[in-house]
Amino acid sequence: MPALRPSPIAPTVDFERDGVQHGFLRLPYSRDDSAWGSVMIPVCVVSNGKGSTALLTGGNHGDEYEGPLALYELARTLDPKSVSGTVIIVPAMNYPAFRAGTRTSPIDKGNMNRSFPGRPDGTVTEKIADYFQRELLPRADLVFDFHSGGKTLDFVPFCAAHTLADKEQEKKAFAAVEAFSAPFSMRMTEIDAVGMYDTAAEEMGKVFATTELGGGGTSRAETVRIARRGILNVLRHAGIVNGAVEKTRTQWLGMPSGDCFAFAEEDGMIETMVDLGEPVEDGQVVARIHPVGRTGQAPLEIRARMSGLLAARHFPGLVKAGDCVSVMAVAVQE
Amino acid sequence: MPALRPSPIAPTVDFERDGVQHGFLRLPYSRDDSAWGSVMIPVCVVSNGKGSTALLTGGNHGDEYEGPLALYELARTLDPKSVSGTVIIVPAMNYPAFRAGTRTSPIDKGNMNRSFPGRPDGTVTEKIADYFQRELLPRADLVFDFHSGGKTLDFVPFCAAHTLADKEQEKKAFAAVEAFSAPFSMRMTEIDAVGMYDTAAEEMGKVFATTELGGGGTSRAETVRIARRGILNVLRHAGIVNGAVEKTRTQWLGMPSGDCFAFAEEDGMIETMVDLGEPVEDGQVVARIHPVGRTGQAPLEIRARMSGLLAARHFPGLVKAGDCVSVMAVAVQE
Amino acid sequence: MPALRPSPIAPTVDFERDGVQHGFLRLPYSRDDSAWGSVMIPVCVVSNGKGSTALLTGGNHGDEYEGPLALYELARTLDPKSVSGTVIIVPAMNYPAFRAGTRTSPIDKGNMNRSFPGRPDGTVTEKIADYFQRELLPRADLVFDFHSGGKTLDFVPFCAAHTLADKEQEKKAFAAVEAFSAPFSMRMTEIDAVGMYDTAAEEMGKVFATTELGGGGTSRAETVRIARRGILNVLRHAGIVNGAVEKTRTQWLGMPSGDCFAFAEEDGMIETMVDLGEPVEDGQVVARIHPVGRTGQAPLEIRARMSGLLAARHFPGLVKAGDCVSVMAVAVQE
Amino acid sequence: MPALRPSPIAPTVDFERDGVQHGFLRLPYSRDDSAWGSVMIPVCVVSNGKGSTALLTGGNHGDEYEGPLALYELARTLDPKSVSGTVIIVPAMNYPAFRAGTRTSPIDKGNMNRSFPGRPDGTVTEKIADYFQRELLPRADLVFDFHSGGKTLDFVPFCAAHTLADKEQEKKAFAAVEAFSAPFSMRMTEIDAVGMYDTAAEEMGKVFATTELGGGGTSRAETVRIARRGILNVLRHAGIVNGAVEKTRTQWLGMPSGDCFAFAEEDGMIETMVDLGEPVEDGQVVARIHPVGRTGQAPLEIRARMSGLLAARHFPGLVKAGDCVSVMAVAVQE
Amino acid sequence: MPALRPSPIAPTVDFERDGVQHGFLRLPYSRDDSAWGSVMIPVCVVSNGKGSTALLTGGNHGDEYEGPLALYELARTLDPKSVSGTVIIVPAMNYPAFRAGTRTSPIDKGNMNRSFPGRPDGTVTEKIADYFQRELLPRADLVFDFHSGGKTLDFVPFCAAHTLADKEQEKKAFAAVEAFSAPFSMRMTEIDAVGMYDTAAEEMGKVFATTELGGGGTSRAETVRIARRGILNVLRHAGIVNGAVEKTRTQWLGMPSGDCFAFAEEDGMIETMVDLGEPVEDGQVVARIHPVGRTGQAPLEIRARMSGLLAARHFPGLVKAGDCVSVMAVAVQE
Amino acid sequence: MPALRPSPIAPTVDFERDGVQHGFLRLPYSRDDSAWGSVMIPVCVVSNGKGSTALLTGGNHGDEYEGPLALYELARTLDPKSVSGTVIIVPAMNYPAFRAGTRTSPIDKGNMNRSFPGRPDGTVTEKIADYFQRELLPRADLVFDFHSGGKTLDFVPFCAAHTLADKEQEKKAFAAVEAFSAPFSMRMTEIDAVGMYDTAAEEMGKVFATTELGGGGTSRAETVRIARRGILNVLRHAGIVNGAVEKTRTQWLGMPSGDCFAFAEEDGMIETMVDLGEPVEDGQVVARIHPVGRTGQAPLEIRARMSGLLAARHFPGLVKAGDCVSVMAVAVQE
Repeated sequence: MPALRPSPIAPTVDFERDGVQHGFLRLPYSRDDSAWGSVMIPVCVVSNGKGSTALLTGGNHGDEYEGPLALYELARTLDPKSVSGTVIIVPAMNYPAFRAGTRTSPIDKGNMNRSFPGRPDGTVTEKIADYFQRELLPRADLVFDFHSGGKTLDFVPFCAAHTLADKEQEKKAFAAVEAFSAPFSMRMTEIDAVGMYDTAAEEMGKVFATTELGGGGTSRAETVRIARRGILNVLRHAGIVNGAVEKTRTQWLGMPSGDCFAFAEEDGMIETMVDLGEPVEDGQVVARIHPVGRTGQAPLEIRARMSGLLAARHFPGLVKAGDCVSVMAVAVQE
Repeated sequence: MPALRPSPIAPTVDFERDGVQHGFLRLPYSRDDSAWGSVMIPVCVVSNGKGSTALLTGGNHGDEYEGPLALYELARTLDPKSVSGTVIIVPAMNYPAFRAGTRTSPIDKGNMNRSFPGRPDGTVTEKIADYFQRELLPRADLVFDFHSGGKTLDFVPFCAAHTLADKEQEKKAFAAVEAFSAPFSMRMTEIDAVGMYDTAAEEMGKVFATTELGGGGTSRAETVRIARRGILNVLRHAGIVNGAVEKTRTQWLGMPSGDCFAFAEEDGMIETMVDLGEPVEDGQVVARIHPVGRTGQAPLEIRARMSGLLAARHFPGLVKAGDCVSVMAVAVQE
Repeated sequence: MPALRPSPIAPTVDFERDGVQHGFLRLPYSRDDSAWGSVMIPVCVVSNGKGSTALLTGGNHGDEYEGPLALYELARTLDPKSVSGTVIIVPAMNYPAFRAGTRTSPIDKGNMNRSFPGRPDGTVTEKIADYFQRELLPRADLVFDFHSGGKTLDFVPFCAAHTLADKEQEKKAFAAVEAFSAPFSMRMTEIDAVGMYDTAAEEMGKVFATTELGGGGTSRAETVRIARRGILNVLRHAGIVNGAVEKTRTQWLGMPSGDCFAFAEEDGMIETMVDLGEPVEDGQVVARIHPVGRTGQAPLEIRARMSGLLAARHFPGLVKAGDCVSVMAVAVQE
Repeated sequence: MPALRPSPIAPTVDFERDGVQHGFLRLPYSRDDSAWGSVMIPVCVVSNGKGSTALLTGGNHGDEYEGPLALYELARTLDPKSVSGTVIIVPAMNYPAFRAGTRTSPIDKGNMNRSFPGRPDGTVTEKIADYFQRELLPRADLVFDFHSGGKTLDFVPFCAAHTLADKEQEKKAFAAVEAFSAPFSMRMTEIDAVGMYDTAAEEMGKVFATTELGGGGTSRAETVRIARRGILNVLRHAGIVNGAVEKTRTQWLGMPSGDCFAFAEEDGMIETMVDLGEPVEDGQVVARIHPVGRTGQAPLEIRARMSGLLAARHFPGLVKAGDCVSVMAVAVQE
Repeated sequence: MPALRPSPIAPTVDFERDGVQHGFLRLPYSRDDSAWGSVMIPVCVVSNGKGSTALLTGGNHGDEYEGPLALYELARTLDPKSVSGTVIIVPAMNYPAFRAGTRTSPIDKGNMNRSFPGRPDGTVTEKIADYFQRELLPRADLVFDFHSGGKTLDFVPFCAAHTLADKEQEKKAFAAVEAFSAPFSMRMTEIDAVGMYDTAAEEMGKVFATTELGGGGTSRAETVRIARRGILNVLRHAGIVNGAVEKTRTQWLGMPSGDCFAFAEEDGMIETMVDLGEPVEDGQVVARIHPVGRTGQAPLEIRARMSGLLAARHFPGLVKAGDCVSVMAVAVQE
Repeated sequence: MPALRPSPIAPTVDFERDGVQHGFLRLPYSRDDSAWGSVMIPVCVVSNGKGSTALLTGGNHGDEYEGPLALYELARTLDPKSVSGTVIIVPAMNYPAFRAGTRTSPIDKGNMNRSFPGRPDGTVTEKIADYFQRELLPRADLVFDFHSGGKTLDFVPFCAAHTLADKEQEKKAFAAVEAFSAPFSMRMTEIDAVGMYDTAAEEMGKVFATTELGGGGTSRAETVRIARRGILNVLRHAGIVNGAVEKTRTQWLGMPSGDCFAFAEEDGMIETMVDLGEPVEDGQVVARIHPVGRTGQAPLEIRARMSGLLAARHFPGLVKAGDCVSVMAVAVQE
């Protein structure tokens, strides 16, 4: 494999300097409406002496807001005097997607979380992934990436980490999740981890945690509060920000098998029969898909294939064949 | 004013016939991808002998789902033997918008609720409005039009009617609202009623009621239950469907002045500081708009100009200058 | 009604001059990509002394080709010495639609044949209609407008005229149709004639004839030959071009009622069960609509409601609810 | 070359099970309007005991209809009791293209027939190709892929196979073509076979045949009958479906050289001077391109460079420089 | 004619108040991406006691920048103490067009300068025009509207006023033009003044002047200096801002007839043979249009039909049939 | 690395034949609107006996016009009798981009000058690059590629060549630049040369020169004269066209470091404070970015980081964060 060319991204901040810096990752992007244009990804570095480095990201998907709301605020308010080590904040990782309010980049339709390890001579999204892969992840000890459901999914609010082959690494990640103190905490087993930022971080041995904190392309006052408290808790837990973790009760969940997921086989108008977090019995109708081309037609029923609670659901009122309709989860002991 | 040409819409149902009919309002629509095409608006008529006529509509705006979910179900399940009179159901009034999942029609960008009285030789949206104005509204005694917030607004769930000059008409409308039994009931004073379906119905002396039952371009199990129970209650209250009204407690609200509404003066990422239905004090910050072009910048604060509760809010995570950010309401006595 | 302002269209030809002129109807059209731009509609005038005036048009719908193929050729080859009177040729009436290969104008989605009498301060399509209404139609004795089925319909080849209240006018029009000598000739009764060019010409007392000569957004060598021979025949019949009419046998058809037309009530893949011109019995399945979302589902059958022959059909392989699927016609005696 | 990751496509049918199964190839496709969405490609398996396996496909290009019309019908009606072996039917191979009515996929503009062998981590079209390459083709003995001209070409109806280096394989393929019994049969020599499904099947040693059965983005009753009879004939010929082949006369054709093809060098309105299947002499004008910007200009003539018959032609009324205008073929002996 | 409904536009400034106010004209605009959205048009009022009122506008067309550059700066820097009377500044009149950088509004394709007198229930552009017509123009004594050539035209820099029937009004307007002191000054005779802002102002008897100060969708340091000095000069000349007019030499020009304008009759690549402001002789080739589909073809020559200087030209490198190619002007005496 | 498949491009000219040939590089391009379509790139070959070969290109970026205007003219007028050797002219290298008037290809958004060495099975742009890389560049001794600023940049007119490791090659290139005799001549040091046509030519040891001759997506009579005289000068200098070089004075410039470039960090309306070619002092404000969302806000100032002259600038009136705002150059001695 030939050596990769250097990243075309030029940061306007110095990752080695103490204090607070607000700057950009400048990525040249020549196009019809700007021959010598660039994508300017905001970045903030808060550093104070020796210590661990946390890399915090939101906007991996551009239509998820609890992360950016927590991280722009943290960047604006974090006092370097309260820090031991370094906090690198990229509140809107897929910045073109974030500005457009879309899951993927409007430039290249790139899904950031399926673009790793990226390419320095690829699409804009791949160039950003490559910069994280080769420049930012190697600097970090702790990596925290905020997600919510975006415009087309809605989740009960949880913090999560993956089951990992390295049980020491897994234990640290679950401890970070516990510190976050979301109402729910999830042990995730990823079926298809190819291209994920999570995987990139975990393969480098980093402590990695993430969230799903709601969805629908909006945020609520309550979920924003969870996000803000949670990320401070994680930084305190890691000893990077001083102060005690604000612990609250969390319910651990798991997704035991592919039977958690139900998919639509018809287009139509969806009716979710239970609300998020409500209990569901095996065999219960969790959703119905109503044909809308004429009145008088029976809806298609979708039934749960296990007992548990409704952890996520399709958000928009219309559904297309192939869409994930519902996700079940079951309570587990940490 | 010259006489209007007849409506180009041809119904495939007979509004005078007893029993259940599922059919279409067929509206010829010639276009590049169908020279002799039509818009096929589903309509259902359930009729049994003499009695009042109710005209029930959803999908006046195409991204609001509690109404269509209640009305497709009602059309499928309403037993004519339980009816005295006639129920005309058009579950997706602006059908092109409903199929697109958009507020306005993808054909002509027409906002149905600003298109009355319509025109038989106008846009597709105006032709539908004209058909309601000249053919359907005159048949009705009771007119019920479902709304929710759609993709860009979210509301506490309420049923509503307008304050009217004709106090007898107003009283009947408020009684229908009371029968609906939503968690909240709203006395609305419309500032700009030009072009509304509401106004068209009220000017013909009809009893008119409407709702706002959530929003965000989705629905919840709970709001769908409110809608289904509510419309049956209204039909029972009107004596068109037999059986007793299922009354539950409702809190009446009012919007005393234009100070209820707050608008954004900057683009940015919005943070709603209180959730829907929560109390707000005069002067309290109800929302903040965060600049996102770089980190380290202070958000713009938007403060309430009265005490009350948060009745509606901007839904998407991004906000544009000019968007309505929040709507306050105050508790009133019926 | 206030006087209309003059047409903004400036012709570069002189309609009163003898000889052959190739020029433009220049219509100013200011837009983002040309502040001082114009639409340049080709026009040809072939004139020789006194005599009647024929106004010949193609491209009323922009995706129909037999007319433009006949008329660009006629404009290029018509010898003024063979003419007595004037032939005005506008081979692509809705020129923006013709250049785009679409039924309606890409500028304003205007269907030229529903835009009469037009407006001098309206859309581009309405301005063209207004110029025909006030400047070109008044010059003409004979008006001939070519149509074919366009991209979404296909017809057996026929020349046609309308049944008219003025039986003298009707007789002249049918005689022109007979002279055209298409394989079929149609007596049309227009159900909804509002806005048509046909109606505009007929209301001025002009002899008006038209065609449907195939479709699908293409042409065939055979249908082009029919068009070329036909238009020369009509001009000879009218005494404007010298020479004898080349008569061939034609079969007269009629469309006795709205039962001629069948419409789709579902989306799907269409299968036309008989080909154009083939005989069909009352009750026979003329088309089937296959659901395509999954295999194993029965098609919807569409049956003829009269005996006759298949005169027209939906062209594209996919069909949408509301599309005209088939048109029946019956043989009649001239 | 590193091992390829497994296909992300999950079938909902079991290719090893006897009987009739209607299901889907579910391909996860995350996008802005469905974070956890999928493409659901209909698949049908009809199996009965031991025997050969036929893999039948339509919709390789999404605007070609004889294949899907034959195959959805076959899937709905094929009685497993008449089968010995297995018939796998994918009536709309490039399903996103088929639903859009376009040659290529609206998702990624992928031309399925230039996407082989595909990639499991590529575009949606490449993922489908990869699934055929690695999962479906290896199961098959006989591979039949339906084509027609699509929206921009029109063909005389023929069944075809390639001349191959392996003469035994070629002989079996030509025998299948002969069994199909289309009006014409074609011996094809592919000039540029890179990326074709044909090539993928042939390189695995499968018996491969294909068709061109018309075009224009529509179908005719006659060509659909040819397709339905033909595919049953091929299955009977292969001993997979019982019953005798319905043989009819076919004319074998060849395309001896690149001189068969003529290309436009100017934009304009095309006039095909002969219809499909008509004889053409060397040097004869087969098409003319008319300039349309003004009247009075001579058309560009395109002449045949061999004698034979017109086998295919450009379909739309407008033509662009570079478009294939006409394809000649010559009669050959099988 | 029925009375017009009130304008839906709500200003956030008080036009009667002394001092400097920066605010908005808020125009409600409901749409798919904001149910309760608005267009927020910036407005600035600088007022000091009694005196005349000047209404200053830029961005009538959204791709012209000298005006907005002069007026945002003036709004930011004008000291009310230097004012006697009132200056109302709307630096971006067609604000949606200005934000999009397009001549017309991206919302409705409205050309502001062809939309007067507007309509309170029309398009967004017509609603803005109506507000100027009924609310702002009546307040003004002096009306100054900045134009440049925009993205598709380029002009020698001039200030201009119309020849008017009221010679007293005309004289005042030409005096304002003289005060502006652009390098050129133009006496304009408008051929088609329907719908113009100019005409709306002049018909109310206001002193109206305008400019063309360059073009191409850009600005130059020099033309911005001309604009800034000029508008201050006009305000000083009117006695609204104190201080002396900075007079410089100006060359008066006229456009004697329609022969000033030359239009393209072919598409192609344009070559302007003389640069702006250079002298041209009658019959001289001012531009050539090169066909680009193949090499070796002669360009079409466009010749001047009068002697004078080149005052304006088509800007983009490609030209379309119907585009204005060049505008000639001749020197006149004031 | 496996051998590359042959280029799919078929030229209709013979590069070995004497005389003048006007033809095409025909590149098959199958797509929804032309199943068997092609891109037809005009090419001209003028050849006369033995001698060097010059390869001349314009339209590498599709919105730059001095090159195409010089080269279509040269192709039309170059007399083979004045030639010794061969001149290959491709006046619009990225022909799809050139026809669209855009920097990059509308087909694949490919920037030709970042697509080398291309791929025979890649995008349309990559296929063109590959043809130059493997077929045209190897034939050439001298390679000249015209550029201007395009729609979004504007330059002082200069001819340029790169500083090269091979000083002999560099010297020949600078001599060609000197012969071109533009007002300015530039010694360029490319920071990121990956994918450039320049690099591809230079790596093969060719003498390579280029230009920037203005910009804004237009041309001026003056810059076209510079281009035409310059390219003849270069060909004369190389001995390929006979006659003497028309030398005029040129000012050599250099860009000493990355400090030449200034980038915007905010969106807004740009004001360039100096015009092209004017002197600038270190620290001087070269541009201001005005916020436009409301009046009364201070512009952002951008200051020069060196003394010199303004060599290039952002062209459109609006600017986005990340756009290059200005480029400084300094006078150097050749």
